[in-house]
Amino acid sequence: MSNDSSNEKASIIVFSGDMDKVMGAFIIANGAAAFDMEVTMFFSFWGLKAIQKGSLTGKGFFGRMLGLMNRGGVNRIGPSKFNFGGIGRWMFKRMMKKHNAIPLDELVKQARDQGVRLVACEMSMQVMEIGKEHLVDGVELAGIATFIAEASESKFSLFI
Amino acid sequence: MSNDSSNEKASIIVFSGDMDKVMGAFIIANGAAAFDMEVTMFFSFWGLKAIQKGSLTGKGFFGRMLGLMNRGGVNRIGPSKFNFGGIGRWMFKRMMKKHNAIPLDELVKQARDQGVRLVACEMSMQVMEIGKEHLVDGVELAGIATFIAEASESKFSLFI
Amino acid sequence: MSNDSSNEKASIIVFSGDMDKVMGAFIIANGAAAFDMEVTMFFSFWGLKAIQKGSLTGKGFFGRMLGLMNRGGVNRIGPSKFNFGGIGRWMFKRMMKKHNAIPLDELVKQARDQGVRLVACEMSMQVMEIGKEHLVDGVELAGIATFIAEASESKFSLFI
Repeated sequence: MSNDSSNEKASIIVFSGDMDKVMGAFIIANGAAAFDMEVTMFFSFWGLKAIQKGSLTGKGFFGRMLGLMNRGGVNRIGPSKFNFGGIGRWMFKRMMKKHNAIPLDELVKQARDQGVRLVACEMSMQVMEIGKEHLVDGVELAGIATFIAEASESKFSLFI
Repeated sequence: MSNDSSNEKASIIVFSGDMDKVMGAFIIANGAAAFDMEVTMFFSFWGLKAIQKGSLTGKGFFGRMLGLMNRGGVNRIGPSKFNFGGIGRWMFKRMMKKHNAIPLDELVKQARDQGVRLVACEMSMQVMEIGKEHLVDGVELAGIATFIAEASESKFSLFI
Repeated sequence: MSNDSSNEKASIIVFSGDMDKVMGAFIIANGAAAFDMEVTMFFSFWGLKAIQKGSLTGKGFFGRMLGLMNRGGVNRIGPSKFNFGGIGRWMFKRMMKKHNAIPLDELVKQARDQGVRLVACEMSMQVMEIGKEHLVDGVELAGIATFIAEASESKFSLFI
C-alpha cells in the first residue's frame, strides 16, 4: 500500500522520559530524516517532557536537567530513573563536555529543521495536565490512531 | 508475502511489568484492533504479571497494585520500578480518579473482546514458575518462535 | 526493495544494559536467526556492556554480574537498574540454577555461531570511552546510519 512517490516512513513512540533514551530517540529520528525518511515521533506519558517548553529553553541542557529534578519533583521526572545511581547525570555531563555530543535541545531543533513530525499524545497530555501552551512550537496534538496509522505504513517503528 | 484477504497484523512484546508501560501496550493494541488489525501481544518476563489472575481480578486496579507490592515483594514487581519514587502510584491514582482513564483490567477485557491474541511466553512462565492456572482465561501459551512468526508478518512490532 | 534471493531481515537496537533485557534481546535474535532471518543487533549506550570482553569472559555469568556491580560502580551498570530491589540477581540466579536457562555468554556465542551481526554504535563507544579492544571478537563498529539502513529493510525492528 506504500506510495512509490512518497518517501519511506519511520515512527517512534517516545514513552520514556529518561534523558538518555530521549536522546537516543532523537538521534535515530534525525538519522532516519537524513536518509529522507518521513519520521513521526509520538510523545506519550513521560516522553512529553522532551517537548515541554520549560524543559527545553533557557539555561542549557544540564542546568535544565537539574532544574527538572529540583523543580516539581514527582511532577516531573522520577529521580531514580533520572539518576540511576548517579550515572545518568554523570554520563550526560561527561558526554557533553568531553565529546561534544549534541545537547537535547539542539537535537530537537535539528529534528524540526529536517521536518520530523512531532506529535504529542492528547490522552497523555490530559492525564498529566499538560496544555498545548506548555509544549514547544510546531508540535501537533493527536491520538493513538495517528500513531497506528503512521506505524502501519512505516519501514520501522520503535517504542522507546 | 502478506495475504490480501487477511487483515494487517501488529505484534507487541510486553516485557515490562511497569503498569504505565503495560497500559501503554494495551492502549496501542486496542487502538490497532479498532483499525481492524490482527494484534498479537506476547507477554514475557515481568510482562506476565499483566495477565496473571491474581493481579487482574477482584478489588479494583489500584488496590490490586498495592496488593502486588505488599504480597510477595521480590516475587512480584520491583518496588523501585513500580513506584519510581512514588510517581507511579500517584500517576495512576490521579489518572484514574480525575480523568476517567480506563483501568488495566478493563483494557485487558477490551483487548479480548476485540480479538487481540494474548500469548504467554512459555519459557518465561517456566522460569518464573507461573502456571497456566495463574493466567487469565483466553491466554495461549507459546514460545519465541510464535512471536518471530507474527512479527515477520506485522506492519509494526514493538518491544515494550 | 527487498531482494527475493536474500533472507528476511530483523534488527534490534540493544540500548539497555539490564541483563534481563539483554538476554531477551539475544533470545529474540537467536530465535529469528533460527528462522533463517538475517539479524543485526546494534549495541548502543548501556547495551555495549553486553559485548564487552570483561563482562563476558571468565568466571561464569552470575559471578561476572557481581563483578560488574563491584568493579567500577557508576562506570558500569547502575545498581538500581541492575538489582531492581534485588529481583534481578535473584531472578537470574534462580533462572540459571533451576531451569537450565542459557547464560548470557552462551547466548552471545549462539548468536555468533548463527551469523547474527553484532554491531557496536561508534558514537556510544566514544562517549563511554570503550575501545574496540574492549569488545568481544567479531563485533563491527558502525554509526546510526547502519541501523537505519538495516531497520528499513527489516521485517521487524525492536528497541530494547
